[in-house]
Amino acid sequence: METLNTTEIQAYLVELGTKAQAAKTTLQSLTTAQKNEALRQAAKALVSESERLLAANEKDYARAKEAGMAEGLLDRLKLTASRIESMAEGLMQIADLPDPVGEVMERFDRPNGLHIEKVRVPMGVIGIIYEARPNVTADAFGLCFKTGNAVILKGGKDAFYSNQAITGVIGDALEREGIDRNAILLIENNDRAVTTAFMRLKEYVDVLIPRGGAGLIRSVVENSTIPVIETGTGNCHIYIDETADLEKAVPIVINAKTQRIGVCNACESLLVHKNIADHILPALGKALLEKQVEIRGDEIVRAQIPQAVAVTEEDYGTEYLDFILSVKTVSSLEEAIAHINKYNTGHSDAILTQNQSHAQKFLREVDAACVYVNASTRFTDGFEFGFGAEIGISTQKLHARGPMGLKELTSYKYQITGDGQVRP
Amino acid sequence: METLNTTEIQAYLVELGTKAQAAKTTLQSLTTAQKNEALRQAAKALVSESERLLAANEKDYARAKEAGMAEGLLDRLKLTASRIESMAEGLMQIADLPDPVGEVMERFDRPNGLHIEKVRVPMGVIGIIYEARPNVTADAFGLCFKTGNAVILKGGKDAFYSNQAITGVIGDALEREGIDRNAILLIENNDRAVTTAFMRLKEYVDVLIPRGGAGLIRSVVENSTIPVIETGTGNCHIYIDETADLEKAVPIVINAKTQRIGVCNACESLLVHKNIADHILPALGKALLEKQVEIRGDEIVRAQIPQAVAVTEEDYGTEYLDFILSVKTVSSLEEAIAHINKYNTGHSDAILTQNQSHAQKFLREVDAACVYVNASTRFTDGFEFGFGAEIGISTQKLHARGPMGLKELTSYKYQITGDGQVRP
Repeated sequence: METLNTTEIQAYLVELGTKAQAAKTTLQSLTTAQKNEALRQAAKALVSESERLLAANEKDYARAKEAGMAEGLLDRLKLTASRIESMAEGLMQIADLPDPVGEVMERFDRPNGLHIEKVRVPMGVIGIIYEARPNVTADAFGLCFKTGNAVILKGGKDAFYSNQAITGVIGDALEREGIDRNAILLIENNDRAVTTAFMRLKEYVDVLIPRGGAGLIRSVVENSTIPVIETGTGNCHIYIDETADLEKAVPIVINAKTQRIGVCNACESLLVHKNIADHILPALGKALLEKQVEIRGDEIVRAQIPQAVAVTEEDYGTEYLDFILSVKTVSSLEEAIAHINKYNTGHSDAILTQNQSHAQKFLREVDAACVYVNASTRFTDGFEFGFGAEIGISTQKLHARGPMGLKELTSYKYQITGDGQVRP
Repeated sequence: METLNTTEIQAYLVELGTKAQAAKTTLQSLTTAQKNEALRQAAKALVSESERLLAANEKDYARAKEAGMAEGLLDRLKLTASRIESMAEGLMQIADLPDPVGEVMERFDRPNGLHIEKVRVPMGVIGIIYEARPNVTADAFGLCFKTGNAVILKGGKDAFYSNQAITGVIGDALEREGIDRNAILLIENNDRAVTTAFMRLKEYVDVLIPRGGAGLIRSVVENSTIPVIETGTGNCHIYIDETADLEKAVPIVINAKTQRIGVCNACESLLVHKNIADHILPALGKALLEKQVEIRGDEIVRAQIPQAVAVTEEDYGTEYLDFILSVKTVSSLEEAIAHINKYNTGHSDAILTQNQSHAQKFLREVDAACVYVNASTRFTDGFEFGFGAEIGISTQKLHARGPMGLKELTSYKYQITGDGQVRP
């Protein structure tokens, strides 16, 4: 990989942006059937060209292993025949989903005779910056393509050869269908300066979506002049109210904390009403400890669960993504809500209660994308919501909030038809 | 006005942000009736305390005049009794509009028994940065307040005393209604460093909306880490197709260009099909010249309108906001669409044609918030669209596009109710 100077970087990115803009126009003229057929052909090509993908991935894997990459990351980087089949299956599923583009969202007539239609349209060109997970390459392409968007991908440098191969196979498949292969473009230079310049390619990219850890997302938010959809960070809470059904509370907490620890919708912090602390905490502590969860609690918690260690202020603000849970007792629903609104990341928070008015107050006042009553926070997911696909979980309030499916990759335009109207 | 160091600036803004966050919570608990009553009381207070507002405005006006402010800007800065009444009338009208907050946008049940509702909610805290137009202060407050949002305003420094007085009068009125006066906050330090730091107050502000000229908007897009809604810049086109009704074409072009020149939905560039150049251009030229419009045209245009001067590439990309129009002839609809997509700002573009398939192609392929057939671009406006209010015209594709009314100042949350569901 060559190191480019600022002018060369700009020239390289403008060339990519120009290609994407040209592809965008042709994409918007495709019918839904044409798009679905292309997705299916791309899926087939991934499987039939597995050898090419596996060989490229082997290069990435060997290099990463030699560089001492951690086991968990190596596992996410690794492609296998069955993982390639899953990628292909993902594209097939996207082909089967309804096409949101072209939907007339509203139509109305004005007194002066103007007829106005609000029509769902593609965003245009979407940029996606992500880490070394080759499956995201095919997945992000599928979602963007189905919604008529060209996509420019910047994957983690450790997956470089894998991403190049996947992009190549999909591009070839598009070309065989008579579609501009530049519907999927990969930034093939891993210099950090290129990525930073990409975040400012505002003339060519309509939306930028970072997918990855908190550091990546922060960097994009800091540097981008392109509108960003912020995804992912989840410091999710469960509050066990005084009137909670304790039979259900333990399984929900165990599920939300331990069913999968490294995900953004896992529970990181538990609040328990003081009046039921002695009733619920021993059983809950036992169940958590059996799952090897480290409990960090306040004084009341530690009195009920001797194995718990002292919690700090910093714990309350931490997304552990690990077998650790902070536990705090509160005196009221109001205190629980205030604590959550102070420390949450606007992702997912739950109340366990049998009291309807407490449930309603919690749903109304907790400021998060997804607020739950008597269920695990782990359901914040495009598939679990029935969207059939997911590009990420938005934690911002602009444009989209919570799980984002196909619709969230679209914009709209107003089409206005008159017969000579002028403004008085 | 004192100059603060970086730490002091941060402390000042965090204090404002904290106040706004506290106000946000109380705002969200108000009923629609309470919000409407507060808006009406604020409107009355503006009128009854006109003297206080006029005195403050006089200080701004005198200072600006002495500093040599241009006539047009002085006029926008000036408050009069009747302008104060208009501001109050604006708040009254907002009180009469339906409240979008609380609307259940979708509801669905999942096979596992989870019930999911997508509910419209306030954004939270909205930041607005604008120029020396005191009327925006009341207007922006009204729209944000109606939608349950706290607002932090940064107005142009030349309107400082006026904004302070308006904010004070409204805050007093809110307080008399038992509502947190911090629902409207004004940044009272005009140091540029404060404004820049405000654009990065991400922990406290959910959305930032710049209202003003291209320079202001560019500065916000460049510096903000808060999600921005970009508004305003309009390089709007009209394309006169071969089959246009020429009786209607001249009045539409004259309206779009000259009815009000300093606005974003005015026409800046005209495209004419070559085959009708000799038929339409002489009459059009005459009408434009009568309105004192300078015509900048290509060779064919200049052959038909001898008074026209030569157009440059730069003209095609210019939003004049003046009595100037660039005019270009094209050989086809495709050439017109390609030219528009190259030079427009995604605001408003129109085709004049009697050919249905040309109209459809134009509506589909021109990439702009508002695309018109046989009407003036001047209709891109929240009031003309029947929204009853307008915070601005979005030229981005994320969240909102085109005229933004009350709905566009809201977000949504998912409220999920279960009875013990855990994820398998």
